[in-house]
Amino acid sequence: MSKSQIKHALPVTRAEDFAQWYQAVIAEAELAEESGVRGCMVIKPWGYGIWERIQKLMDERIKEGGAENCYFPLFIPLSFFTREAEHVEGFAKEMAVVTHHRLISDGKGGLIPDPEAKLEEPLIVRPTSETVIGAAMARWIQSWRDLPMLTNQWANVVRWEMRTRMFLRTSEFLWQEGHTAHADEADAVAETLRALEMYRSFAEDVLAMPVIAGAKPENERFPGAVETYSIEAMMQDGKALQAGTSHYLGTTFARSAGIQYQDKAGTQALCHTTSWGVSTRLIGGVIMTHGDDDGLRTPPQIAPQQVVILPMLRDNDGDAALLDYCAALRSAIAGHMVFGEKVRVLLDKKPGKATAKRWGWVKKGVPLILEIGGRDAEGGQVSVLRRDRLWREDGKANFIGMPQDSFVASVPAELEAIQRALFDEALARRDAQISREVADLAGLGAFFSEDKAFPGWAEMQWSRPTGAALDKVVEQLKALKLTIRNTPMGAAPVSGVCPFTGEPAVERILVARAY
Amino acid sequence: MSKSQIKHALPVTRAEDFAQWYQAVIAEAELAEESGVRGCMVIKPWGYGIWERIQKLMDERIKEGGAENCYFPLFIPLSFFTREAEHVEGFAKEMAVVTHHRLISDGKGGLIPDPEAKLEEPLIVRPTSETVIGAAMARWIQSWRDLPMLTNQWANVVRWEMRTRMFLRTSEFLWQEGHTAHADEADAVAETLRALEMYRSFAEDVLAMPVIAGAKPENERFPGAVETYSIEAMMQDGKALQAGTSHYLGTTFARSAGIQYQDKAGTQALCHTTSWGVSTRLIGGVIMTHGDDDGLRTPPQIAPQQVVILPMLRDNDGDAALLDYCAALRSAIAGHMVFGEKVRVLLDKKPGKATAKRWGWVKKGVPLILEIGGRDAEGGQVSVLRRDRLWREDGKANFIGMPQDSFVASVPAELEAIQRALFDEALARRDAQISREVADLAGLGAFFSEDKAFPGWAEMQWSRPTGAALDKVVEQLKALKLTIRNTPMGAAPVSGVCPFTGEPAVERILVARAY
Repeated sequence: MSKSQIKHALPVTRAEDFAQWYQAVIAEAELAEESGVRGCMVIKPWGYGIWERIQKLMDERIKEGGAENCYFPLFIPLSFFTREAEHVEGFAKEMAVVTHHRLISDGKGGLIPDPEAKLEEPLIVRPTSETVIGAAMARWIQSWRDLPMLTNQWANVVRWEMRTRMFLRTSEFLWQEGHTAHADEADAVAETLRALEMYRSFAEDVLAMPVIAGAKPENERFPGAVETYSIEAMMQDGKALQAGTSHYLGTTFARSAGIQYQDKAGTQALCHTTSWGVSTRLIGGVIMTHGDDDGLRTPPQIAPQQVVILPMLRDNDGDAALLDYCAALRSAIAGHMVFGEKVRVLLDKKPGKATAKRWGWVKKGVPLILEIGGRDAEGGQVSVLRRDRLWREDGKANFIGMPQDSFVASVPAELEAIQRALFDEALARRDAQISREVADLAGLGAFFSEDKAFPGWAEMQWSRPTGAALDKVVEQLKALKLTIRNTPMGAAPVSGVCPFTGEPAVERILVARAY
Repeated sequence: MSKSQIKHALPVTRAEDFAQWYQAVIAEAELAEESGVRGCMVIKPWGYGIWERIQKLMDERIKEGGAENCYFPLFIPLSFFTREAEHVEGFAKEMAVVTHHRLISDGKGGLIPDPEAKLEEPLIVRPTSETVIGAAMARWIQSWRDLPMLTNQWANVVRWEMRTRMFLRTSEFLWQEGHTAHADEADAVAETLRALEMYRSFAEDVLAMPVIAGAKPENERFPGAVETYSIEAMMQDGKALQAGTSHYLGTTFARSAGIQYQDKAGTQALCHTTSWGVSTRLIGGVIMTHGDDDGLRTPPQIAPQQVVILPMLRDNDGDAALLDYCAALRSAIAGHMVFGEKVRVLLDKKPGKATAKRWGWVKKGVPLILEIGGRDAEGGQVSVLRRDRLWREDGKANFIGMPQDSFVASVPAELEAIQRALFDEALARRDAQISREVADLAGLGAFFSEDKAFPGWAEMQWSRPTGAALDKVVEQLKALKLTIRNTPMGAAPVSGVCPFTGEPAVERILVARAY
């Protein structure tokens, strides 16, 4: 058997059907499943464990940035949105509306909303908390001494979605939303960019997911925002995933909510506000960045378990000694630190055959898998599988035998190497798939032609049109199923004309298909 | 001035009006506030910081117990409850009902639920997740090898409440809900009791809040449960607070949801399930256990900051040296460990007078407050206020000067001593307020007579009546505004007859007014 004849662990490969492959990873790695509730998923232990890691490491960064966590109500009165709808064009209205507060029997063995318990004012399940946090900030902020006010919330939010896809677009999702108020534009813009940089470095350093940070074009801004920035990641099918956003909101929301302060001269002034968020969508990004035809490869920084030990039990007298050896091995590994934390190592003693269990962990993407047999225990050896180097040239699982001591000592370096290798692989793939050769619309059509499975992105230059001129560009791109992702920060200089408008080019944009 | 003339930091004392005092602590310690959304509160940074500490330390214990965290949908289809209502008598129906998924303009500048976007089946905002987790377990459990299945969720839940009180009873609250499935009764009961003991030790060791664990009488069981256990804490007004519950559900919910497994003999059998939970209500318990007339006294284990350093800045040339001294002090303190974690210490550099800031931290209940002036910095001294020993005999704040080095070295021991002192104080107060002398209904009436502000609890013996006989006892107690809290585990033996029924007594019960 050679590498090309490998029988992969998933029922479908990326090349065969990327969308189905994505669903297969989620199912086979036991990350999540459909809940039976429209557009809502059940996040299973391995998927939720990844989210807990993301929460922990992001929360540390949010607090280092000076924000304090609060919790605001799930329900927002309809009137808050009426106010918002007046101020914000493009305000989205697909929301879950609570109209009753009691059930009664329908007299036929069923339950119905009690007509006597109709709410005077409907409540909206928060799609985002701008309005209710804005109202709180209006109460909390009196003077310049209260500024900046940096607030963050971890919460569930609901946006009614017609077509849902697990982790990427669900009616309910989990996220954090930062909301900040500042004395002036400069401070608010600096905070917007600080949050953006926090997301960029988090995506790259923690998720091993290379991203490009930049400003969104006018048409892709958050409704009411003066400027929206995003980080964009390239998935393995070449599509872009918006993985985090940071908005400078000017005084739009402050005016709507009455967030004002007395400045040092004693004058009342409106605050400048920002908001920024990332969600469980990041897990979708991790899957489509690091997954392969054998399941997920979980970056060590966010792996709920970084090392799993599988004792090859034989239901005989030797098992006790083998388990003792494995327990000692577990302790030795757990005594090491990596990325500033203790190594997370699991001794998996569940019933079942070791090879079946091995493939379960391969699909979950545990970075290091150990299989320990009686002979390993006697000889002080371990047999190690690195998830990112799964197959040998001959098509067999790439287990490497080594003395226990030297393996244990090498664990932190190995995990660091895996984290780096995943990032380097994703970066090289992405960079190879960004074309800077596309000159115009015809070129775009050719680059994204249907016969190319995974075309990647085109980096082009343009004149930053606005209003109707921008609409025209957006329409032209839409006909090719393309969108402008963002204007990458630190891009190369421009020269010549914009291929869309014929005006002088002023900046570069990334054009791509997107999730 | 003497201690009796102290001007306390709160506008109202416990003795004057306990209910108003409770609201005052929440406001002045900046724990939470009304949100403007009926029955929902905003949890502010200090209150949410306490909840984050509770979450972290409880989550560790939950995971040590073998449960894995998942996330289940916020919305539960109405039909799930129809099934439940069939199986469970006393099923509560006060729930938030989602009936529409879109807003539209009403043509008059307002928004209304879009009649075109009415849901075919209403969705209920989860009041608890028994039904939806039961449905998942029915999918996940096939054989005895899958058991026990131990699942936990941290989530927000909603129960429509007519009269709300912050932290104690709010329409939306935050909690954890453990849900477990087992092969047989013995294993499920053991898990129920393990969770109960986890809550007992958590309340006492972490919250410094003494509790009594025991079984609830039949009439106080969770609807559908075979047995409900609780931990009950005594508040400073003598009332009981149910601070956590653990339910053995028998096969009631397994039958309703179809949670079954194939046993080793190949036969299908119903699982025995449990559920257990604690909520943000614990924070209400902490306030009413440890608060005093100057605000909250936050137990060091859950204090978001354990030490706060206040530099007495004078807006002059000396400030830089003072801040350097305080920063070095902060680092030195942060280098120490207590309760297995790094000491949490804040250098508060916010603008404002040091004494005003001092009272802010006193009201929040930071265990140790340091005020550092220029002379302290020059002399290598610190001035320390222990929050649980706030006042000197002469009615002044009880600051104690000492050399920096010896203070820094003593921080862990001081924090441990404060944690212990808070517990000991609460325990002594509670034990002094439990009467075992009450013999009958007349005695209960006298013990709980209106002229006694804070009467405490009565421990009595009874015959454990059921059905109509129990109803009669409950009615008699209700007339005195009393309830049976639980039957304390490890209570003294009984002898003689039950004062309610005249039957032989079989166990002891706690009778109290309750939140």
